Amino acid sequence: MPQLSELGEADVLDRLLAHRRAGAVEIVGPGDDAAVTNLTGRLVSTADMLVENEDFTRTWLDWHALGVKAAAQNLADVCAMGALPHGLLVSLAVPDTTEVADLEALFQGIVAEADRAGQALRTAVPVIGGDLSSSGLIVVAITALGSAEAGHAITRAGARPGDGIWLAGTLGRAAAGLDLLFAGARPGELPGELTALIETQLAPQPDYAAIAALIAAGRAGGPVASAMIDASDGLSTDLGRIAKASGVHADLDRAALDPLLAPLLPAAEYVIAAQAANGEAESAQSWSDAEALALHWVLDGGEDHGFVASAADPGPDPVGWRRIGEMQAGSGVSLDGAPVPTSGFSHFGK
Amino acid sequence: MPQLSELGEADVLDRLLAHRRAGAVEIVGPGDDAAVTNLTGRLVSTADMLVENEDFTRTWLDWHALGVKAAAQNLADVCAMGALPHGLLVSLAVPDTTEVADLEALFQGIVAEADRAGQALRTAVPVIGGDLSSSGLIVVAITALGSAEAGHAITRAGARPGDGIWLAGTLGRAAAGLDLLFAGARPGELPGELTALIETQLAPQPDYAAIAALIAAGRAGGPVASAMIDASDGLSTDLGRIAKASGVHADLDRAALDPLLAPLLPAAEYVIAAQAANGEAESAQSWSDAEALALHWVLDGGEDHGFVASAADPGPDPVGWRRIGEMQAGSGVSLDGAPVPTSGFSHFGK
Repeated sequence: MPQLSELGEADVLDRLLAHRRAGAVEIVGPGDDAAVTNLTGRLVSTADMLVENEDFTRTWLDWHALGVKAAAQNLADVCAMGALPHGLLVSLAVPDTTEVADLEALFQGIVAEADRAGQALRTAVPVIGGDLSSSGLIVVAITALGSAEAGHAITRAGARPGDGIWLAGTLGRAAAGLDLLFAGARPGELPGELTALIETQLAPQPDYAAIAALIAAGRAGGPVASAMIDASDGLSTDLGRIAKASGVHADLDRAALDPLLAPLLPAAEYVIAAQAANGEAESAQSWSDAEALALHWVLDGGEDHGFVASAADPGPDPVGWRRIGEMQAGSGVSLDGAPVPTSGFSHFGK
Repeated sequence: MPQLSELGEADVLDRLLAHRRAGAVEIVGPGDDAAVTNLTGRLVSTADMLVENEDFTRTWLDWHALGVKAAAQNLADVCAMGALPHGLLVSLAVPDTTEVADLEALFQGIVAEADRAGQALRTAVPVIGGDLSSSGLIVVAITALGSAEAGHAITRAGARPGDGIWLAGTLGRAAAGLDLLFAGARPGELPGELTALIETQLAPQPDYAAIAALIAAGRAGGPVASAMIDASDGLSTDLGRIAKASGVHADLDRAALDPLLAPLLPAAEYVIAAQAANGEAESAQSWSDAEALALHWVLDGGEDHGFVASAADPGPDPVGWRRIGEMQAGSGVSLDGAPVPTSGFSHFGK
């Protein structure tokens, strides 16, 4: 199993690009100074990176999953604009002691997730370019490009009082998975339902099919979202962003969140028991009640990359979307009328 | 002077974005899940990153220059396709002990270089998105987006025997500057002409105006490049890439390189003297002759981001371009007929 230092940059690139799937949009693909592609409509672009020790650790590193996650978080941002993914640019920095096979697994994870998005959205999502560098830390920096029909990009700013609040995908699973990892659990050592939560943390699977349904419904004159966001920093934070940008108040329906909480309760019990056993109840945020912890994950946990949208009634039901609340006049976020503080993830201190 | 850890991610972002210059192409700018912009023509995209200890060190870190360099290397790749820059996506990872003012200087360097390109090319080049993360190492990952008129992208593959080889900008200055830095020299401690070489290494200044002239000449029915490359890995390597992609042989004219060598001779003498004083003549590549070292920098040194193009006679003279050789039938690169090995930069071992 050779390390990168035993091959040259060109050989490593060749091995990675062998896993690439080309796309019909490509006029000039990888191997020139820049890619040239045939984009129709408006250009949608976003960049997000994953950094070792900040977004993941060596302790629970799964190279393929890391690729899936890096692709998913970028593709979800394109989709949250109501846009179709067009291609990815992939910049990878890894130690030169990295096994080539591990780097290939990372790249394959990126390609696999781009394929999954492409199949759901009936488009090709090729890796059209990128960069490869040696580094003391693993860094995966991806740019996702997309296309939106003119006038059809869905921002955070269009929600109106009376609109329903809709969710596609899940909330809280990745946060539960992270707390399981912090509690020392590892995939495979746990019952399948808990392992699946860790897998959501390691390799989230945004519900691209729900975006495809939303775009198709809009084209057919059906319901269109008035605002949308990739809830990557947590529902409370990201719904708060829609509320702020739109000048509305977002009230969540606690009962509508029950189907999201129920699958998290065994994990909450596991984490509470582990914290008690480790004497961490004082230092960590202290949860005595599994339901309260599960609700915290659903409200404040990001990284599932659920899509949260607002839409005038009747809304995008039933194509993968569930109604979880209603926009009202005012500001901020509430749960059955009680204010919810935004407490999602922030890099740096505060 | 606060550090990042004393502010929140949102406050830091606000400070950075205050230095941003908006562009007319923006339909949705920073602050949503993704940017939406109005692109005409084909989409040109490229990504490149700079990593601490691999591409620069703390010892000679100049935050503003680092921003200039990161932007320049990406903008040059767009320009080397004969395309106009459209916007940048900027992903920054820095330790949370970083001074906010230093991060601002980095961002300002990026904006300044994008502005310089925009002015030369008569277009706006806004930072339209990006990401900010905490990290143990400084990583600057930039994606440059551009637009090319349909059918007008200039690849590496179009050179024909008989075409002239043309250079816009410089070669070897950044490599000389790097060897000066390795020899212990620091900007300001040296005569101005040597300091200027270090400045080219720290903050290269591609000749965007020559690209503007080339595009304008092409539109007016004048000379168009048959192939072009950003000579970022060194003339021998990058001209070799054109030769390989085009199926031609590239013969450089030694006399035409003289104006590039002459300004490097004092630096070559300095570096040779410093290596001798440090007893490094054995361990380092051993140069006894200043002219030979200067020629090595010109042939094998990258990072000036000179543009190297081929064009049928009469070629793009006189708009910032100098003729440095001729394409012939065959393969590989030669200097006055003598073979030149490609020895440009490669990440990882070989």
